[in-house]
Amino acid sequence: MAGMNHLRENGIVHRDIKPGNIMRLVGEEGQSIYKLSDFGAARELDDDEKFVSVYGTEEYLHPDMYERAVLRKPQQKAFGVTVDLWSIGVTLYHAATGSLPFIPFGGPRRNKEIMYRITTEKPAGAISGTQKQENGPLEWSYSLPITCRLSMGLQNQLVPILANILEVEQDKCWGFDQFFAETSDILQRTVIHVFSLPQAVLHHVYIHAHNTIAIFLEAVYEQTNVTPKHQEYLFEGHPCVLEPSLSAQHIAHTAASSPLTLFSMSSDTPKGLAFRDPALDVPKFVPKVDLQADYSTAKGVLGAGYQALWLARVLLDGQALMLRGLHWVLEVLQDTCQQTLEVTRTALLYLSSSLGTERLSSGAEMPDVQELKEATELRSRLQTLSEVLSKCSHNVTETQRSLSCLGEELLKNRNQSHEDNRSAQKIQCCLDKMHFIYKQFKKSRMRPGLSYNEEQIHKLDKVNFSHLAKRLLQVFQEECVQTYQVSLVTHGKRMRQVQRAQNHLHLIAHSVATCNSEARGAQESLNKIFDQLLLDRASKQGAEVSPQPMAPHPGPDPKDLVFHMQELCNDMKLLAFDLQDNNRLIERLHRVPSAPDV
Amino acid sequence: MAGMNHLRENGIVHRDIKPGNIMRLVGEEGQSIYKLSDFGAARELDDDEKFVSVYGTEEYLHPDMYERAVLRKPQQKAFGVTVDLWSIGVTLYHAATGSLPFIPFGGPRRNKEIMYRITTEKPAGAISGTQKQENGPLEWSYSLPITCRLSMGLQNQLVPILANILEVEQDKCWGFDQFFAETSDILQRTVIHVFSLPQAVLHHVYIHAHNTIAIFLEAVYEQTNVTPKHQEYLFEGHPCVLEPSLSAQHIAHTAASSPLTLFSMSSDTPKGLAFRDPALDVPKFVPKVDLQADYSTAKGVLGAGYQALWLARVLLDGQALMLRGLHWVLEVLQDTCQQTLEVTRTALLYLSSSLGTERLSSGAEMPDVQELKEATELRSRLQTLSEVLSKCSHNVTETQRSLSCLGEELLKNRNQSHEDNRSAQKIQCCLDKMHFIYKQFKKSRMRPGLSYNEEQIHKLDKVNFSHLAKRLLQVFQEECVQTYQVSLVTHGKRMRQVQRAQNHLHLIAHSVATCNSEARGAQESLNKIFDQLLLDRASKQGAEVSPQPMAPHPGPDPKDLVFHMQELCNDMKLLAFDLQDNNRLIERLHRVPSAPDV
Repeated sequence: MAGMNHLRENGIVHRDIKPGNIMRLVGEEGQSIYKLSDFGAARELDDDEKFVSVYGTEEYLHPDMYERAVLRKPQQKAFGVTVDLWSIGVTLYHAATGSLPFIPFGGPRRNKEIMYRITTEKPAGAISGTQKQENGPLEWSYSLPITCRLSMGLQNQLVPILANILEVEQDKCWGFDQFFAETSDILQRTVIHVFSLPQAVLHHVYIHAHNTIAIFLEAVYEQTNVTPKHQEYLFEGHPCVLEPSLSAQHIAHTAASSPLTLFSMSSDTPKGLAFRDPALDVPKFVPKVDLQADYSTAKGVLGAGYQALWLARVLLDGQALMLRGLHWVLEVLQDTCQQTLEVTRTALLYLSSSLGTERLSSGAEMPDVQELKEATELRSRLQTLSEVLSKCSHNVTETQRSLSCLGEELLKNRNQSHEDNRSAQKIQCCLDKMHFIYKQFKKSRMRPGLSYNEEQIHKLDKVNFSHLAKRLLQVFQEECVQTYQVSLVTHGKRMRQVQRAQNHLHLIAHSVATCNSEARGAQESLNKIFDQLLLDRASKQGAEVSPQPMAPHPGPDPKDLVFHMQELCNDMKLLAFDLQDNNRLIERLHRVPSAPDV
Repeated sequence: MAGMNHLRENGIVHRDIKPGNIMRLVGEEGQSIYKLSDFGAARELDDDEKFVSVYGTEEYLHPDMYERAVLRKPQQKAFGVTVDLWSIGVTLYHAATGSLPFIPFGGPRRNKEIMYRITTEKPAGAISGTQKQENGPLEWSYSLPITCRLSMGLQNQLVPILANILEVEQDKCWGFDQFFAETSDILQRTVIHVFSLPQAVLHHVYIHAHNTIAIFLEAVYEQTNVTPKHQEYLFEGHPCVLEPSLSAQHIAHTAASSPLTLFSMSSDTPKGLAFRDPALDVPKFVPKVDLQADYSTAKGVLGAGYQALWLARVLLDGQALMLRGLHWVLEVLQDTCQQTLEVTRTALLYLSSSLGTERLSSGAEMPDVQELKEATELRSRLQTLSEVLSKCSHNVTETQRSLSCLGEELLKNRNQSHEDNRSAQKIQCCLDKMHFIYKQFKKSRMRPGLSYNEEQIHKLDKVNFSHLAKRLLQVFQEECVQTYQVSLVTHGKRMRQVQRAQNHLHLIAHSVATCNSEARGAQESLNKIFDQLLLDRASKQGAEVSPQPMAPHPGPDPKDLVFHMQELCNDMKLLAFDLQDNNRLIERLHRVPSAPDV
């Protein structure tokens, strides 16, 4: 973009922008520096001047130039600087996906009329068009394909740009200034890695450092569908409170291996990573020895192999993030348990000292004294509250225990997952050997022919190469993909278990708080009676006076208890939902008994 | 070892064990498989048979064989299988440190008499001997040098083995069986990575999986000097309680990048990583063009460069571990703060309801009643306790604030440290370019001479190579080492701050606990007085008039509600059991169709 801007500032149209004309230089710090090169087709022009000669590489040509240069149709259209924009659009698409955006059946060079139709008839907003069958219909796509390795976050930024520069109508097409502004805007953004634990998906969120956190939360919502107020974050094992009004610079530096972990109560089933099986993109060798064809096939197979390796690593990383994220959530819940327990214990300690002693609580032959009655009632109320608290504390302990069990299961799983890393190593190993054969093929194809012995070796290499490719795909499918899918299902189950525990703990904490404030009320009433008794005793001692009427104490409020019951009911409803979820799952599993690649 | 054992079982002495005779094979999963090769010097012998012919590569020769083969002295010693042990000892030392253990001044091949003296005069327990000056004294070492890349944990295991096989006296030297047992023992151990936060040192602890955790703690003590009972661990951000009686298998799987973090109250200043400045090992080019010498020099410089890169990465990782470890400790302390605060708040809530109302606490003209006096005294005691608790809560809040400040400082530092990673990239970049020149030198040295032009290029390459080496060492020294040292000092300061905060929190928690139990005592005494007053009142009232019975309480009896709640709880438990049943069902269903190898 910077190179194009420089040309533009100097009034030059490049006219042959394509991947092959972009050179990569390795900088002082190992970073890639890309340079625009090959100005053989470039032309100076005054800002509004149009040029009429045409040049360029046909796949990347603007349709108007294509019409004239490739189809050799006479037309008098004048080409402005926007022809470079079209070419950079095709280049970006190619670099991002590994394939061209506009492909007639048989390829762009075979069917040039269709190629022209695709580029000119493309509806607004579409960024690619293909013809899948001879003389078949044109199919449009408005998003990047599943094989595109760019994150969704970046795709969301890039697609509108592509749609607006791959636009044949001059008045709809962006001008260079807008293009430059929009691309620069992307480059200035920072990436925040967010792993959505319920969905088991890693998101890349592109925001500006000067944005507020509110904007970040909104961007997360767009990708995860979790509303900002339901987004809870963990970072490196601990809750991470994001204040919406602060600047996004307050968010810690994340990495794909150390993302913010989004935890929400949404009961999504984890969908994990969507990907295309690389086995579908493995070409087959022709039976006879054909050095050029064998080389191309080997290259294609190797490409699919590297894609499988990349996927294997992404899947393994995804599993690690699931396990670690759950481990963290468990630890946080254990902290909550501990805290609730401590509070409950303190409350029980204080309550125990306010309860009546035995000789009063027995109440066998209680005389009919108002204070005594009231006090006894209040105390029995405190007794009840203390029992509820004990019950709460017991429930917390039970939750702790079940969380611990889950924790141990996780630990075992995590130790296991270190074994799983070996599958990526196996794939790597196959690739290394395949790469060695591929290099031989690359050398051979330049030669006029092979000697008998060399040909035998070549044949053997082809067999070996195919065996290695088969083994690679087998390891990928049977070790990586299947393990991943099993772990997704297990993760979903565990997430529901953890969410239930969290709900449960919320309710318990609420109950404890309510008990505490009720107990406080009762204790205060008791205290007033006590005060009165003390005062009476004091005044009696001075001069015998009748006791003052007590202020009516607030009395036990059954409404609170009713509230508790309603909460419990809600809890039950949640459980019932879970059950329904499960039932649906069972049904589905039952219906699709043997679909390995859901 | 396995190869040697195989030879031994077949009654064969290898007699030429050295690094050059050990071949590396890459296995199916990319792992290294080492194979013993070159049996040109091997000889069959019956178990007790000695052989008298000698062979081998002199640096790795047993002194007795050396005497006869290299020094050509006539002697009638018979050589047993232990000569292989000596050679494997020298080989292990060489592989572990990159240099030979026994080096006379000028090198082993220049001064053969001294070489013989070093190997035969070596005191028991020493594993290396060098002569630093011409005709100078021999210097012995009983440990591996600082340049050895093996962890201290592994060195501790290896050194006794080396000392016992690099032993010229037959009766002191280990037999093969003991050697094999001891080396097998190491291989069967697992490594647990422990990062000592106060010392800022990463330790590798070698234990057997069947060992108890107590043995692990003892092994940590040996390396860190922190006694088992003072060892506190964090793993992935959370406290990790290690029960000494359990098996070490309960310890989570660690890695150098994800170690157990040891946190102790020891006030060591962090010593960090001890290393030798690679600049000291950089040879200088001779001024004239000497293809062989230039190649050797380039090789030496490149070696030092790779060592610098390795060190740079270790130093950067060390910094990351310090920052992350501190971050975790802070989070754990923040949790403690929160917990203490909650407990204190609950306690204050209960206390507030037990304090006297104003008309009594004013006590302006308190009549001389004993109960009143006692009650007032107890209440003023509770008042004091409540003030102490408020004070505690205030202190905790202050600690929280200062921890938060430190946390923000850490966050900034961590974001900064991602910038620091660029220095390793810079070094890597220099090395890539140097490696390219080195490969040229490697090719050139085989040629008889260079043309004028080639020689000019060679000269230029030498200059470039030196420049790159200088820049590399400068980046290492000025960016890596200095940053590391600054961060060590900062880390030490922060550790002390955190340890102070932790101490402070301990004291506060203790105060809170004491207050609570005192308050309980006071409340109980108050309660007794209350009971007495109530009883008094009752007995008095009973004798006099009975007041009206209390109006029945309106609304539902709270006890009933509690009962209902308990019922609901039970219902929920039943539902939860159902869910678990379902989950099990799903698991089974899932396992049957698509996971044959789970």
